[in-house]
Amino acid sequence: VSARAAIVVTGTEVLSGRVSDRNGPWLAERLLELGVELAQVTIVGDRPADMRAALEWCASLGVNLVITSGGLGPTADDLTATVVGQFCGREMVLDTALEERIAAIVVPLRARWPHLSEEAIRASNRKQAVVPAGATVLEPVGTAPGLVVPPAEGRDGPTVVVLPGPPRELQPLWEEAAQTEPFAHAIRDATVYEQRTLRLFGLPESEIATTLRAAAEAGVALDRIEVTTCVRGGELEIVTRFEPDAAAVYAALEAIIRERHVHVLYSDDGTHVDEQVAALLRAQGLTVAVGESCTGGMVLGRLTDRPGASAYVRGGIVAYANDVKAHLAGVPPELIEAHGAVSQEVAVALADGARERVGADIGIGVTGVAGPDGGTAEKPVGLVWIALTAADGRRLVRRADQRGTRADVRERSTTAALHLLRRLLLGAADEPAA
Amino acid sequence: VSARAAIVVTGTEVLSGRVSDRNGPWLAERLLELGVELAQVTIVGDRPADMRAALEWCASLGVNLVITSGGLGPTADDLTATVVGQFCGREMVLDTALEERIAAIVVPLRARWPHLSEEAIRASNRKQAVVPAGATVLEPVGTAPGLVVPPAEGRDGPTVVVLPGPPRELQPLWEEAAQTEPFAHAIRDATVYEQRTLRLFGLPESEIATTLRAAAEAGVALDRIEVTTCVRGGELEIVTRFEPDAAAVYAALEAIIRERHVHVLYSDDGTHVDEQVAALLRAQGLTVAVGESCTGGMVLGRLTDRPGASAYVRGGIVAYANDVKAHLAGVPPELIEAHGAVSQEVAVALADGARERVGADIGIGVTGVAGPDGGTAEKPVGLVWIALTAADGRRLVRRADQRGTRADVRERSTTAALHLLRRLLLGAADEPAA
Repeated sequence: VSARAAIVVTGTEVLSGRVSDRNGPWLAERLLELGVELAQVTIVGDRPADMRAALEWCASLGVNLVITSGGLGPTADDLTATVVGQFCGREMVLDTALEERIAAIVVPLRARWPHLSEEAIRASNRKQAVVPAGATVLEPVGTAPGLVVPPAEGRDGPTVVVLPGPPRELQPLWEEAAQTEPFAHAIRDATVYEQRTLRLFGLPESEIATTLRAAAEAGVALDRIEVTTCVRGGELEIVTRFEPDAAAVYAALEAIIRERHVHVLYSDDGTHVDEQVAALLRAQGLTVAVGESCTGGMVLGRLTDRPGASAYVRGGIVAYANDVKAHLAGVPPELIEAHGAVSQEVAVALADGARERVGADIGIGVTGVAGPDGGTAEKPVGLVWIALTAADGRRLVRRADQRGTRADVRERSTTAALHLLRRLLLGAADEPAA
Repeated sequence: VSARAAIVVTGTEVLSGRVSDRNGPWLAERLLELGVELAQVTIVGDRPADMRAALEWCASLGVNLVITSGGLGPTADDLTATVVGQFCGREMVLDTALEERIAAIVVPLRARWPHLSEEAIRASNRKQAVVPAGATVLEPVGTAPGLVVPPAEGRDGPTVVVLPGPPRELQPLWEEAAQTEPFAHAIRDATVYEQRTLRLFGLPESEIATTLRAAAEAGVALDRIEVTTCVRGGELEIVTRFEPDAAAVYAALEAIIRERHVHVLYSDDGTHVDEQVAALLRAQGLTVAVGESCTGGMVLGRLTDRPGASAYVRGGIVAYANDVKAHLAGVPPELIEAHGAVSQEVAVALADGARERVGADIGIGVTGVAGPDGGTAEKPVGLVWIALTAADGRRLVRRADQRGTRADVRERSTTAALHLLRRLLLGAADEPAA
């Protein structure tokens, strides 16, 4: 028996889909690290009755731990603490020392509420100091404290970890919660699972299904490990979770995957292509410049995502209009005339132009038909050319035929450009033309 | 009594947080349009017992409709149809006509599965043609059919709409489901709610709390309408939902919000700043170019997001390194020397440089300290200058002090640049310097 947990996210804005929940996925990862199995995530609105029903449902699943996010604000409709207190059979009491600490946080912020007196602010925040008796209080990062609330003496049921909704408050309070004694007690049955992630680029999911069948036929005991595959853009991720004594089963599976897909396997250590590219550029002391059309700045935006990107990103040119390709990126107009703006030749010229005009070791050129309009029979929506050219003369050029919406085409092309850059940095290059 | 619905999302990859659920938020919007209240969203893994427990929980909430997404694939662990059939008290039967239609879709795709015989492919897809007796079958968009499954004759409980997980399959099948007779029957009690959305830029959420209190004091019956506020980046959204006979209450609230916040209210018709900027640029026949540093291409990427962006986006320069700002964007090196790369002067020079070198009517310049490193006491992380300069001499320059992570600083600065562009297009301009 392993320890199990459930997550209850509260908030009408999340339930209505106007805000996407970032806490559920983050908490799911953290639970996995602790060897706690996540049974389910429920999103409910701000009504106390719905929240209570969700807690009861979690209890009926027999989980050891419930984590709530949201509903801890100073306004009267933020009722999570009270609902959890009732659920755990604990009286609500004012923690006066906590009230003072919240006041010390809130009062200096009073300039934010010019219409309110200091007393009014304190009153609205006093509510946040009313906590279930016997709960462990987690010190606020914003103004809301978190709570670890075990069931009252003599009662069964899960321990509830109550966290505020904003991720920058929730995350540090979670780390604090996980250090507390009642938390450790609640998950004392956790099994430590191993988890391995393999990432492949440019392989259809059906190929992995075939490989898994081949592994089963070769005698790999797949029932002893839990394999999940998922596809995002052109990237395929295989996550395998297993108890330590099934390590040999996983090793056999990984060997078969490596044997069949070695050319597209790009990560076995949890890294994404973005950090691999950053590390390779740093290690080789190389800089990059981008000349992009259909992706309109997204390749540059992604390359500059990471802290310290200025060590290897010099800059780039977004040449959306054809004459900008010519006069700013140096693409010869006769090339556009002869081959069209979406062509192998123009992709190479964009890469060369960006590299030379920005001044970098490697140039990336991207041109394509993002859609939904502008496609032709010869050059349909989704056709994208990606070129990499290096100052030392190496070159990699690929045609991609992306499926999906305009957003899909642009995002997948951005990802494809990063993968092509990775390959160039690992030494791949096209044969020089005759 | 209004009609209520619940959503059950299945999939270990969603539950584990590796893939974020896009179907829940999309379905939430659709339900709202139909006047159906969403009670909760639950995410469970691929285990039949968990799925069944989630359906039972939805039933206990008394909802009229349950929508499931995922678990309809051809593999043996995709068991949603069977679980739903049992839950609704309906026997599973092979629909041979459906089997033929699926075969007609799948067999031409056999090139994707070179290791499998046609017969093996058909067998694995036959499973998808086994459906609950009496269910309405929705024709597949991929290979998986959807289902509308009412409770069996003489049973109580919700009608279940079974949809495939991939959004591009789920969305058309949902539209089809909503046209069926059993669906209409299940939601026959739906109340038609009105919904209004106001969007404001650059106002702290606490100000809206104050305004709501003021409205209550002025006698607006807030208990008759449902007001939700949420903040994303610097944008604040106020969504109000009400029954038609509370329209006057909403009108009174909106009047108070307009009176107090007219300068920051930018949308009352559901539009986002992106589409407003696009419409204004089109209507005025103007083009834009961007010279960006800390946002590294994100402003250009966002401006080119929309179909037809080439009508108003000419292109831009991402000048990440200082010498690229100088030689490619035309920022005078002595300006960088005198004021630093993050300064009002350099932001203006980036805007001018991009506008002139790309050739556009309006230039946008963005320079700042995205962090996490590189901040100083004088120029801390989060300090960003945004400048707009127009060919006719108008100019808007703003300093933003963004909070949050590197990603927050970059994203909020991108949003702020779009809002500043909107203001310029509406005629705002700084006074010329003396």
